[in-house]
Amino acid sequence: MREVAVIGIGITKFGELWETGFREMGMQAGLAAVQDAKLTAEEIDALYVGNMSAGRFIEQEHVAALIADYSGMARDHIPATRVEAAGASGGLAIRQAYLAIASGQHDIVVVGGAEKMTDISDTISNEIQSSAADQQWECVFGATFPALHAMIARRHMFQYGTTREQIASVAVKNHKHGALNPNAQFQKEIEMGTVLKSGMVADPLGVFDCAPNSDGAAAVVLCSMDKARKYTDAPVKVLASAQASDSLALHSRADICTFEATRVAADRAFAQAKLERKDIQLAEVHDNFTISELLAVEDMGFFPKGQAGKATMDGQTTIGAKLAVNTSGGLKARGDPIGATGVAQIVELVQQLRGTAGRRQVDGAKYALAQNVGGTGATAVVHILGVA
Amino acid sequence: MREVAVIGIGITKFGELWETGFREMGMQAGLAAVQDAKLTAEEIDALYVGNMSAGRFIEQEHVAALIADYSGMARDHIPATRVEAAGASGGLAIRQAYLAIASGQHDIVVVGGAEKMTDISDTISNEIQSSAADQQWECVFGATFPALHAMIARRHMFQYGTTREQIASVAVKNHKHGALNPNAQFQKEIEMGTVLKSGMVADPLGVFDCAPNSDGAAAVVLCSMDKARKYTDAPVKVLASAQASDSLALHSRADICTFEATRVAADRAFAQAKLERKDIQLAEVHDNFTISELLAVEDMGFFPKGQAGKATMDGQTTIGAKLAVNTSGGLKARGDPIGATGVAQIVELVQQLRGTAGRRQVDGAKYALAQNVGGTGATAVVHILGVA
Repeated sequence: MREVAVIGIGITKFGELWETGFREMGMQAGLAAVQDAKLTAEEIDALYVGNMSAGRFIEQEHVAALIADYSGMARDHIPATRVEAAGASGGLAIRQAYLAIASGQHDIVVVGGAEKMTDISDTISNEIQSSAADQQWECVFGATFPALHAMIARRHMFQYGTTREQIASVAVKNHKHGALNPNAQFQKEIEMGTVLKSGMVADPLGVFDCAPNSDGAAAVVLCSMDKARKYTDAPVKVLASAQASDSLALHSRADICTFEATRVAADRAFAQAKLERKDIQLAEVHDNFTISELLAVEDMGFFPKGQAGKATMDGQTTIGAKLAVNTSGGLKARGDPIGATGVAQIVELVQQLRGTAGRRQVDGAKYALAQNVGGTGATAVVHILGVA
Repeated sequence: MREVAVIGIGITKFGELWETGFREMGMQAGLAAVQDAKLTAEEIDALYVGNMSAGRFIEQEHVAALIADYSGMARDHIPATRVEAAGASGGLAIRQAYLAIASGQHDIVVVGGAEKMTDISDTISNEIQSSAADQQWECVFGATFPALHAMIARRHMFQYGTTREQIASVAVKNHKHGALNPNAQFQKEIEMGTVLKSGMVADPLGVFDCAPNSDGAAAVVLCSMDKARKYTDAPVKVLASAQASDSLALHSRADICTFEATRVAADRAFAQAKLERKDIQLAEVHDNFTISELLAVEDMGFFPKGQAGKATMDGQTTIGAKLAVNTSGGLKARGDPIGATGVAQIVELVQQLRGTAGRRQVDGAKYALAQNVGGTGATAVVHILGVA
């Protein structure tokens, strides 16, 4: 398999972008990434798009062809492919592009991720997001996506003594990081009390434990390593791309406090990259709910099971610590336009590894990891990137 | 890139399967393919699923994880990825699996395609299918998916003198083939008059010019060529896998009677396979409407532009002719469960190349082609298979 590098990144602001349509967001991010890579349109071999549910959010399927069309790529009739695994759609799109280059089929591939969530009511949006879980055996009985994560949080508290404050500290930390990110949906620090006193969504999770509904898009350009230096002096190498699945419904799991798909994908990624946990300086993880970040860093082996709450509260995942988690603000503060999220994680890692992350820069960042989750852990994708 | 073979196939009956849910159909087809390949579950490296719109048809996204779960594959935490490009979803899923094996990442990959369309009203189903076209610039103004194809048909009649009877002859021929296929939704021959007198859908297309709404699933097992002989004495080789895109809306095309994506994908496929048009004995093409089959065989260079109507009426694409088109019955008679269609095409080619197609067997079939289209030609996928 050929080696693969990231040579371009682009991202829109995340938020309630009522003036901007799905196709405009996709174009903006894609063209920014292509410009960043100093590419001409003719050099692009293929497009992959990560998107969860444009069919329901904006009644438009077939969105990879749409973005290829509006960004001008369809003129050269390049292959355009949409990939979906709920919240992990963006990470999966990156992985497909990685495989297409590694195979020798393509040299330069643009990957976009986009979701337009705020043009419909919150009730319908909640229904759509719940379709990432098992509709027939969970949602039809009244379980919502937040409710399923609340069950996990309650069980984590029972099983490991994790406290409400420890869970809330994820939100405090990620808002602190988001305040340093000019593209974040929320650029404002919050206090512990704000999280604890926020309106209840599903006990114990309040509004500030949940990632927001967001519009936004992100894009990266992947390139075979042998060609990457033609476009940039600072290519970022994709050291590992790994994916794993698990049962869709929580009731089929031996332990709902462990996402086996995350554990397995991380093991596969570290084996492929030939790195150890301690080699990683920063990680973007899938904090769609505060509890999810604790599971992520535990399941990937950065902290012993049940210890991540304390570690987060102690500042061990804040910028400046040995391992900085969600330097972008994470899904919680940067925002979570579902299909864009996995691609936005890679954008953040590349900015950090290039040393261009501004006020949130992690000093001496050399190796970085992204963990992207679909549903309540039925799909997990882990990428490890490094300075080339 | 490594060579890839098909070592297993499975398919459900297509039709209105009201007793069978999406997950059951997916399982049935997948397990049939795995049994056909004589595989054990542990040997499977990954799953790809082609599906257009489970999010809207059954309110369930994340369906690759769902099928991995219910077929037992999630126990080994294999990567499970859904791919979507409207009607071309199945062909695209096959192509992603092909690339994953060609890259050296995986050895054995199961590809499933499935759609459950008949649990909702025809009106809503029509809306969902129209989301394969440009929602914002076509459908919002009242254009439906049949209406867009009717415009193409009218223009083809005007531009090339194609007659209503020639267009209808596609349906007559495909029902004749479908009558020989025990898995087809319609296994009954029809006469020209039946098509001409059928209820009008969008002038000039009547009910019998349109593929039906269908439930169904199909699956294939792909394997690296070097390992294929371990599982079967009769592997079928994937000689080419090509994909192309075009504008989503018809108004951006220079000529709506040519699907440029089909033309380009076919050119790429024949170049990869190092074959000529005359080498192909049979083709499964995307006859979602009768007119679509005429475009397909013209755009791929089997007949000069404007001549396919006459050729079809003359029997030049019927089983027994030099080129048999849609031996399965095509989308028209076999049925069109959207995400399953592109995979079902490959199932048919493999049956023909193995010499196990029964009463519809094409004598001496050595090379076969499948053309799978998304929307009104914004995505096209062409595969060429051959006896190994």
